[in-house]
Amino acid sequence: MDEKYRFLSKIDSPDDLKKLNEEDLPELCSELRDFIIDALSCNPGHFAASLGVVELTTALHYVFNTPYDRIVWDVGHQAYIHKILTGRRDRFYTNRKFMGLKPFPSPEESEYDTFVCGHASNSISAALGMAVSAAMKHEDRHIVAVIGDGSMTGGLAFEGLNNASSLPNNLLIILNDNNMAIDRTVGGMKEYLIRLNTDYRYNKMRFSLWNIAKKTGIVGERHKNKILRFNNSLKSLLSDQQNIFEGFNIRYFGPINGHDVNSLIRVLSDIKDLRGPKLLHVHTIKGKGYKPAEKEATIWHAPGCFDKETGERKVNCSANQPLLYQEVFGNTLLELARKNDKIVGITPAMPTGCSMNILMKEMPDRAFDVGIAEGHAVTFSGGLAKDGMLPFCNIYSSFSQRAYDNIIHDVAILKLNVVLCLDRAGLVGEDGPTHHGAFDVAFLRCIPNLTICSPYDEHEMRNMMYTAQLPDMGPFVIRYPRGRGDLVDWKNDFEEIPVGKGRCIVEGKDLAVITLGPIGQTLRDIIGEIDTEGRIGLYDLRFVKPLDKDMLCDIAKRYRMIVTVEDGVRNGGAGSAIIEFMQDNGFSIPVHRIGLPDEFVEHGSVAELYKVCGMDKESISSVLKQKLEVL
Amino acid sequence: MDEKYRFLSKIDSPDDLKKLNEEDLPELCSELRDFIIDALSCNPGHFAASLGVVELTTALHYVFNTPYDRIVWDVGHQAYIHKILTGRRDRFYTNRKFMGLKPFPSPEESEYDTFVCGHASNSISAALGMAVSAAMKHEDRHIVAVIGDGSMTGGLAFEGLNNASSLPNNLLIILNDNNMAIDRTVGGMKEYLIRLNTDYRYNKMRFSLWNIAKKTGIVGERHKNKILRFNNSLKSLLSDQQNIFEGFNIRYFGPINGHDVNSLIRVLSDIKDLRGPKLLHVHTIKGKGYKPAEKEATIWHAPGCFDKETGERKVNCSANQPLLYQEVFGNTLLELARKNDKIVGITPAMPTGCSMNILMKEMPDRAFDVGIAEGHAVTFSGGLAKDGMLPFCNIYSSFSQRAYDNIIHDVAILKLNVVLCLDRAGLVGEDGPTHHGAFDVAFLRCIPNLTICSPYDEHEMRNMMYTAQLPDMGPFVIRYPRGRGDLVDWKNDFEEIPVGKGRCIVEGKDLAVITLGPIGQTLRDIIGEIDTEGRIGLYDLRFVKPLDKDMLCDIAKRYRMIVTVEDGVRNGGAGSAIIEFMQDNGFSIPVHRIGLPDEFVEHGSVAELYKVCGMDKESISSVLKQKLEVL
Repeated sequence: MDEKYRFLSKIDSPDDLKKLNEEDLPELCSELRDFIIDALSCNPGHFAASLGVVELTTALHYVFNTPYDRIVWDVGHQAYIHKILTGRRDRFYTNRKFMGLKPFPSPEESEYDTFVCGHASNSISAALGMAVSAAMKHEDRHIVAVIGDGSMTGGLAFEGLNNASSLPNNLLIILNDNNMAIDRTVGGMKEYLIRLNTDYRYNKMRFSLWNIAKKTGIVGERHKNKILRFNNSLKSLLSDQQNIFEGFNIRYFGPINGHDVNSLIRVLSDIKDLRGPKLLHVHTIKGKGYKPAEKEATIWHAPGCFDKETGERKVNCSANQPLLYQEVFGNTLLELARKNDKIVGITPAMPTGCSMNILMKEMPDRAFDVGIAEGHAVTFSGGLAKDGMLPFCNIYSSFSQRAYDNIIHDVAILKLNVVLCLDRAGLVGEDGPTHHGAFDVAFLRCIPNLTICSPYDEHEMRNMMYTAQLPDMGPFVIRYPRGRGDLVDWKNDFEEIPVGKGRCIVEGKDLAVITLGPIGQTLRDIIGEIDTEGRIGLYDLRFVKPLDKDMLCDIAKRYRMIVTVEDGVRNGGAGSAIIEFMQDNGFSIPVHRIGLPDEFVEHGSVAELYKVCGMDKESISSVLKQKLEVL
Repeated sequence: MDEKYRFLSKIDSPDDLKKLNEEDLPELCSELRDFIIDALSCNPGHFAASLGVVELTTALHYVFNTPYDRIVWDVGHQAYIHKILTGRRDRFYTNRKFMGLKPFPSPEESEYDTFVCGHASNSISAALGMAVSAAMKHEDRHIVAVIGDGSMTGGLAFEGLNNASSLPNNLLIILNDNNMAIDRTVGGMKEYLIRLNTDYRYNKMRFSLWNIAKKTGIVGERHKNKILRFNNSLKSLLSDQQNIFEGFNIRYFGPINGHDVNSLIRVLSDIKDLRGPKLLHVHTIKGKGYKPAEKEATIWHAPGCFDKETGERKVNCSANQPLLYQEVFGNTLLELARKNDKIVGITPAMPTGCSMNILMKEMPDRAFDVGIAEGHAVTFSGGLAKDGMLPFCNIYSSFSQRAYDNIIHDVAILKLNVVLCLDRAGLVGEDGPTHHGAFDVAFLRCIPNLTICSPYDEHEMRNMMYTAQLPDMGPFVIRYPRGRGDLVDWKNDFEEIPVGKGRCIVEGKDLAVITLGPIGQTLRDIIGEIDTEGRIGLYDLRFVKPLDKDMLCDIAKRYRMIVTVEDGVRNGGAGSAIIEFMQDNGFSIPVHRIGLPDEFVEHGSVAELYKVCGMDKESISSVLKQKLEVL
């Protein structure tokens, strides 16, 4: 270690970093890059984003006095270098593992981590809160938000920008512009930034003149008014160009090369003490320094294990393995779109993640990547549906929390034919608490006019998608998990599923298990193992809304106890819907609910997390056995 | 009618409007203004916003072929003229009344109403959906979104703008700029628009040159490329100014005077057939044409009844009447802020509505109006709390749906000390389905780390606010209704309420009624009337989360039945929390839940709506009597 990482091996905190000479930093950056490539080649994680901010992160910790000064990362994908420089180098091999380093920066893990950063676009708002807090307490700490151009398309970032100029604060926003979210950035803001990049004249001149001014002593905190006057006259002198950020009264600097650590340090030192909100536009290359990643940044966003020499990704052999639910979604959507020309696909910046790229490739005019903008994705879908199209809007379950009002106000009230596909519902594993799709059933179930279902397997998934696009189905929610399905032969013929109808998987007599989604298959296996006498029945609820009243009445009459199992929170979830039903219909049958607990579930493999939540096979088996005994 | 409204009396649809000569339109506008002033002086509603768009609305329906062409209003406050011109003049006296015209445009009411517009900032996204739908179906319909500068501060509007330029569409966005939301608009966008307004040179020249070009035949659909080239060279010729909207590839026209109906018609006719997304910036005055409203637009946003001659508002005499819950909130917040210097107030554009203006007036540095930006309001509060401040973030319950992810991701995960005050929880009355605070308990109850409570009366409200600001309380939600409280003597001394503790209001023995919030007082009255034998007990739950386990166990043991009553949805609400508790703890006591049904509740007085929902005194009485009989 020491030999290979001459500088890095001595850095256990930003204080150690500050002991290095500026001229040694490029070498350190090269070591950091090697370290990341080394570590991630065998312990999978988010790769390309962190390679892009090696110099920026180094410069930030070199110039700013962290943790007193605050760096607020927007989306923790890019924060691995930050972790390595802030005392977590030796534990970095545990990154994203159960009980290991958390997937994203978290104040619970380190004082250098200032806020939660699992969902995009929140950094400006959170950092603005800290900056205003500092101003009110007369603290001189610096607050820096680091936000990517992808995150900048989110409405929340705009709301933060809009507010930043009207409050007393010295916030520094760093726009890390690599023209990428996970997929390529889209939208007007992207176009704008490209144009901004090409208009170097004004900014370059302004910046170099400003530097001269600084050296000649015009600039300095005591000369604030002079600076402002200087800047203003410079502006009118050179150009009338009005920059979006300057339009918002946020001073704009850049764009500058994000891979020149020394010039980054110079610029950051120059502007850090300027009063008022300001933005530094930094150009970086996602995947910088690792050729395969520079070429295909989307694939290398989170590539899994790879051979660092050859750049070959170690993809598990998937021959004869079931497809991912995501792939079933993508292929099925294309299949349906071929038959029904009203169908369009909408994704907020996740075409690859949700496999809508399959539709996009064959029918580019029928699939819309609207940017990191979940709220807009849903309202836009509402507008499309209002005028006769049939949008399949695919959002990760945890991100759909951002579109909650849009689902209620812009879809449900008018009963619009929008198919809302909630990908990654339930526990997602290594991405942890911000990414688990834990709450969707609970928060959607209370909304009138929605149909909400979840498939038992891939065939059901396809049938639900087929059913959802039949005429006048109204708002139709399909939630399904991340990861592989169970059927190699996934491509069944489409069949309509009667809305609000569940089905019996196994007949029983004493104890009825009611499940929602693919976890039903686990229960089928468990019951097969522990119940040789046919005492346990298994029912696939399919629809949380509307409930299958006939099936539930039948169960209430024929069984003596119900156990519900779902991959979502117990509080208010599908199990609650069932006890509500039983109470409303005068049944006094006891209902035991198995589901996620009332706490944020940490990261780890899904199997490990199920164990923590008492939802692994063993735990569920033992609950069922216990129940059978007392019946 | 006919004499006073010479033109207006003949207009039953936009077709009738189109029969008028252009020179008669100013007279029509004057009649429309009189009509609105007349109607609203005795039937209260949203006043100033509609006065501001008399000419704009008239011009839109004159130029566009509605309903084939689509006008999408952003927030229906401004759409009264639209209603009057589209066949609803004669029923306008029923506006906002139970069973009468709906408070906001609604496609369920009229084919001229194209989308739901209760919550701000959704028009661009919805209209973009319609515009893309039209393009895909090769329909030549025009789509126009009319959005105020206040709504433009919402992140959703930005997401829509960002997406508009990258999709095939001919959307026309009209920016109705009056520098007002309900309160004055705030933020960088406002500053930007003011500056844009003063820079007439470029836009005026561009527009007049463009007109000349049109007349000389350069312009026309067949000459699209020429237009673009013309426009671009014009731009570089005249100025380098880069407009925010043009920066997003949305062509910008304006600003123009929104009270000159003939020039509006000219401009709209000129630009309507231009391909691609475009924005027309229109200047209006909120309250235009009625002096008192022009002067104090916030008060005249929804002034109640008034004497149209003198401009005197008919405020009900409130001497010896209880304060509004809003006023109790505002005064108490100030009182607490005087004692605890960490307290700050945050409101997304509702300082007057929620009475945070009381704090704002005395301590302007301690209260932040962040614009129509609920998501940012919560995340900003999270940032403030993270660095030691104690934000009271006040959001209307139905608007808090917009901050759902922010509550989970930016507050709850880190257990930050943010006090979330949900104003207008439960039924709100005349504002109807988009504004009822129906869902909050159901959608918040599933989030870990939250404390959620609702006060029985004003004293409890003050004690809850006091308790919430004590050290390390974590995220604390207080939901309370719109309207007057019940105590004239509202100002009690503060007292800490033990978190998660309910209380017994009336002791009983057979039937326990458990309530959440001020509806408990109604139940107290009912029980006093119908239960002379002391059979019914009444319990104030206070906290939906955490539940009072001791109290609930005690109830389960001592009573034979529970009835829960809450001013929120039955599905997943407080009653569900109680049946979950009973099931989890092995109690088989039957629980009957009274609450809002699984449908969107219409508009009307709260009393009328309670009746519809079976939640008026009579309905609840009869349920309780029935239950007593069978026990």
